[in-house]
Amino acid sequence: MKFRISRSALTEAVSQVSKAVSQKTTVPILTGIKAVLDEDGLWLTGSNSDLTIQVAVPSKKDDKELVEMERMGSVVLPGRIFSEIVRKLPGDDVEWVVDERWKTTLRSEQAQFELKGLDPEEYPRLPQLRDDQMVSIPADLLQSMIRQTGFAVSTSEARGVLTGVLWQLEEGTLTFVATDSHRLSRRQAEVEAAADLTMKNVIIPGKSLSELAKILADQNGWVDVIFSDNQIMVRADHLLFFSRLLDGTYPDTNRVIPQGGKTEVVVSAKELLQSVDRAALISRDGRDNVIKCMLKEDGRVLIHSAAQDVGSVQEEVAARMNGEEMSISFNAQYMLDALRAVDSDQIQIIFTGTMTPFVIQPADRDDALHLIVPIRTR
Amino acid sequence: MKFRISRSALTEAVSQVSKAVSQKTTVPILTGIKAVLDEDGLWLTGSNSDLTIQVAVPSKKDDKELVEMERMGSVVLPGRIFSEIVRKLPGDDVEWVVDERWKTTLRSEQAQFELKGLDPEEYPRLPQLRDDQMVSIPADLLQSMIRQTGFAVSTSEARGVLTGVLWQLEEGTLTFVATDSHRLSRRQAEVEAAADLTMKNVIIPGKSLSELAKILADQNGWVDVIFSDNQIMVRADHLLFFSRLLDGTYPDTNRVIPQGGKTEVVVSAKELLQSVDRAALISRDGRDNVIKCMLKEDGRVLIHSAAQDVGSVQEEVAARMNGEEMSISFNAQYMLDALRAVDSDQIQIIFTGTMTPFVIQPADRDDALHLIVPIRTR
Repeated sequence: MKFRISRSALTEAVSQVSKAVSQKTTVPILTGIKAVLDEDGLWLTGSNSDLTIQVAVPSKKDDKELVEMERMGSVVLPGRIFSEIVRKLPGDDVEWVVDERWKTTLRSEQAQFELKGLDPEEYPRLPQLRDDQMVSIPADLLQSMIRQTGFAVSTSEARGVLTGVLWQLEEGTLTFVATDSHRLSRRQAEVEAAADLTMKNVIIPGKSLSELAKILADQNGWVDVIFSDNQIMVRADHLLFFSRLLDGTYPDTNRVIPQGGKTEVVVSAKELLQSVDRAALISRDGRDNVIKCMLKEDGRVLIHSAAQDVGSVQEEVAARMNGEEMSISFNAQYMLDALRAVDSDQIQIIFTGTMTPFVIQPADRDDALHLIVPIRTR
Repeated sequence: MKFRISRSALTEAVSQVSKAVSQKTTVPILTGIKAVLDEDGLWLTGSNSDLTIQVAVPSKKDDKELVEMERMGSVVLPGRIFSEIVRKLPGDDVEWVVDERWKTTLRSEQAQFELKGLDPEEYPRLPQLRDDQMVSIPADLLQSMIRQTGFAVSTSEARGVLTGVLWQLEEGTLTFVATDSHRLSRRQAEVEAAADLTMKNVIIPGKSLSELAKILADQNGWVDVIFSDNQIMVRADHLLFFSRLLDGTYPDTNRVIPQGGKTEVVVSAKELLQSVDRAALISRDGRDNVIKCMLKEDGRVLIHSAAQDVGSVQEEVAARMNGEEMSISFNAQYMLDALRAVDSDQIQIIFTGTMTPFVIQPADRDDALHLIVPIRTR
């Protein structure tokens, strides 16, 4: 293996695959990054068994030669130190030579590194997925669907399927659902897919999705999502992202979502967010991070919280109200998460009762909702 | 106590005194911020016993009224939560009312907080310093003198006086010295002071100085430094900074600094820094973070490091050399710290032998030097 490569293109590719590489792994070779040079260019792979990212540096891009090949081959290099070296090398190009015992020389201007490489045959194979179960979706839409649901997954490993986001496809509509059983978030969008294609019980680990969201931030245009019984693959420009799926059956959450309510409030998302954010300064000192919300007939929403040793807070937000006056208590952090995820200036909150779940959604759309279970207080 | 105050002026003052407030303290009232309203304005004080910061918000500044007084008084408020509240309040002004039991109401537009305050009489008094031992110095010069020496103090509490920086004044020259016994940094500058004033064995804790450096970053013009047997005070615009001094006698370091050398090298500080920074990627994996430097008669400086399980690095930097060829090994981090602190494009390194300390200094000035003790290698 012997070639020269553009340092900036290499740096970008290494930074992307590094998102999948963990120093804490029971499979030592996975602390490494696999590099394969073939006629198309350089392929880098990083993996932590749950998720795998593969990125290509093509030989040419926009008429600019990025890789100048001399001898094909492959090697696995120590991930952390390799990515630090690449980032700090001085020149525009890197000369990269691997000998028959995987000893790798990286040379750039006055700097020369020798790294002990590993046999690439020992690196796990990528899963193979057939293209027949495929959905196409704009990268930025997929990213916001992840951002608007992923925060609601359970962070406790013991909760099994609830640590993942459920992806469903029916009649061209892709639905994401996440819940930790105290709150639930749901986001829907039309996508491009074969008319008869359905996706059921596809559960993707929340951690994989937060890495995927970071990667999608750098992508333009559309991406393909391909799924099988135990893997999902997202295919973008010169990039493949794989995640294993979670085993188990996701609970039916449809019957949890209330239809209609006793009291409906329309309010500025930003004003409510800022008031709850301030009230949380006090509630965070309490046991349940609980704030109390009073809906007044004259349209005022009063927010109150008190912590014994610190003090109390009272906030007021103007709203349009429809229905009965009501007092309801809930976890401030759940409300903050939902308000930050709602992508709308005005939101509608539908209350069904003091002790039953309430729903937050954009005032002008019904493709997103956030449900929160209230807290019983004295 | 009752007044209105500009929120932006209050936010800035709170953020400055917060630098001195610690949540970890054996004196519970020191987790608070003391506020005193008198005819000049609002005075805030934060302290962690080692260092104390006092900041004033004057009644008026540039013809703008910052504080609108109604009733004088004082209170101590919980520091962390008070500073978060002030930062997040919605309006331009804050109404601040304290009742006779220290209960404090902060009101701004639709937000109202009530905080449990404490009796300000229980807050420790500020030390009193007389103005007769005083030095004046530009704020930015004092900041760079701290930055260029403070990193060399010992971080081990057991090392006593070596955890501080020695300040000396003689014939109008202020000298800072810091050493952890493996390396030493010294910086000198002319200051304004009474001709016969001397400062001997004034040792200021490194931690206090790093907070002082942050505060000086916001200051223009000159500051006064006033010292006594056990305290130092820095007086700037609407700000007082106090630090206790370390007990004990600082060792005489003059005889450690070599006069003249066997080999002298002049080199670009930036090129050498970047090469050592890359070499440290490898050396950090080893036991002593050691790199080896070879000075070649033809003017090349070769840098080498190897770590058993990872690999090795070789770097080359062009230099002007005078004297014998030499190989010397040292801690990469000490060299990086010194090269980042040297405020000069070209530096001179004076080597006295393979096993004796070497000195790094600006090529064109003699007001700063960094000494490093080499490491014995096989």
